[in-house]
Amino acid sequence: MNPSQPNAISEHPGKRTSGARALQKGQQTKQIIIDAALGLAEQIGLEGLSIGALAEVTRMSKSGVFAHFGSREELQISVIREYYQRFSNEVFFPALNAPRGLPRVRTLFANWMKRVAIEIQSGCIFISGAVEFDDRPGPVRDALANSVQTWLAAMHRAVVQAKQEGHLVPDADEAQMAFEIHGLILALHYEARFLKSPGATARANTGFENILLRYGKPRIPGLPHC
Amino acid sequence: MNPSQPNAISEHPGKRTSGARALQKGQQTKQIIIDAALGLAEQIGLEGLSIGALAEVTRMSKSGVFAHFGSREELQISVIREYYQRFSNEVFFPALNAPRGLPRVRTLFANWMKRVAIEIQSGCIFISGAVEFDDRPGPVRDALANSVQTWLAAMHRAVVQAKQEGHLVPDADEAQMAFEIHGLILALHYEARFLKSPGATARANTGFENILLRYGKPRIPGLPHC
Repeated sequence: MNPSQPNAISEHPGKRTSGARALQKGQQTKQIIIDAALGLAEQIGLEGLSIGALAEVTRMSKSGVFAHFGSREELQISVIREYYQRFSNEVFFPALNAPRGLPRVRTLFANWMKRVAIEIQSGCIFISGAVEFDDRPGPVRDALANSVQTWLAAMHRAVVQAKQEGHLVPDADEAQMAFEIHGLILALHYEARFLKSPGATARANTGFENILLRYGKPRIPGLPHC
Repeated sequence: MNPSQPNAISEHPGKRTSGARALQKGQQTKQIIIDAALGLAEQIGLEGLSIGALAEVTRMSKSGVFAHFGSREELQISVIREYYQRFSNEVFFPALNAPRGLPRVRTLFANWMKRVAIEIQSGCIFISGAVEFDDRPGPVRDALANSVQTWLAAMHRAVVQAKQEGHLVPDADEAQMAFEIHGLILALHYEARFLKSPGATARANTGFENILLRYGKPRIPGLPHC
């Protein structure tokens, strides 16, 4: 029998199992490459990524790495997806346990700050990638911009909910508040990572409290604070 | 007589003149190269600069370009100095005509916003360079960080003066205010240039007014507003 026939595998259950195993192993290998690529991209940027550099880091052959992605762009996009997933798992999803409204906005900001604290050392793909791809249209830029926009939209949605819950002053501009919060994060990353300025983390936290002083409803004495 | 002797030129006024002319021409050529390098660096980053690329843009020989700088690092540092000078001429110096205090802080911010409006199209070396050099110690990083720090210190000084002039609330934290202003500029650049978000300029301006609501002395009716 010719094993290249479509039904060849189904007639040999053993082969099907080994096929599934090969698929699983392939996915594991791909994940190892993506992990290495993410580590490399945080250090040298998405544009620094190359099939060759990754082959060296993972001690695989170039053709072995290439087989999993097909192109450098696909590799870059896989790294962006992986980063976005980790970011969501650390920053976004745990905040859903906090009550809707200002408590959730506070938790999102606190989780974001924790992520930045790590990225002051390691670098941040959302920030370095923006500089690398701000004038390079194409699928990598789109993947990166979509990831950032999805996250910023989630933050904005939490602010909108805070207003709906009556935690903000009635004229609070939700997009404005989200913009100002984003600015604090960017200033923290810039001043702490590049300028090595001491005190930037405290300033970002104080800046957040200042934003709440402006947009949050004044605290009613005796009631728990959001 | 041997013209290589130290006093050779002084004995020939004509040669001195041609020497001075050669020097002047050399400086002009160097300036042409720096202008081209700055344009290139804004597009592709300081790290993208190479003697070869510049030779192509300026239609000079590689050795001709190299002779003016000696190294790629020196070229990068010259570009940073040029950018800093232009930034100071556009943003800092004109603001000294505004009265000391809040009017000068306002003018500095307005001039900075004008610069960012251009850089939303062209890119900004202070921002892209920070990403390129945040983990690369050396003279280029130092030159860039020093330039940014000098500018941020000037902004901070203007805020300190505003407090001294009695234009801010007595407990205003000047470094905090300068940090929050920096955040607005970074968020504007990020959201307008990379994400192409509409309305980011208006949000940066509103953010600035919000900062003044927090730190500025409440306006006294009948008196001119700072």
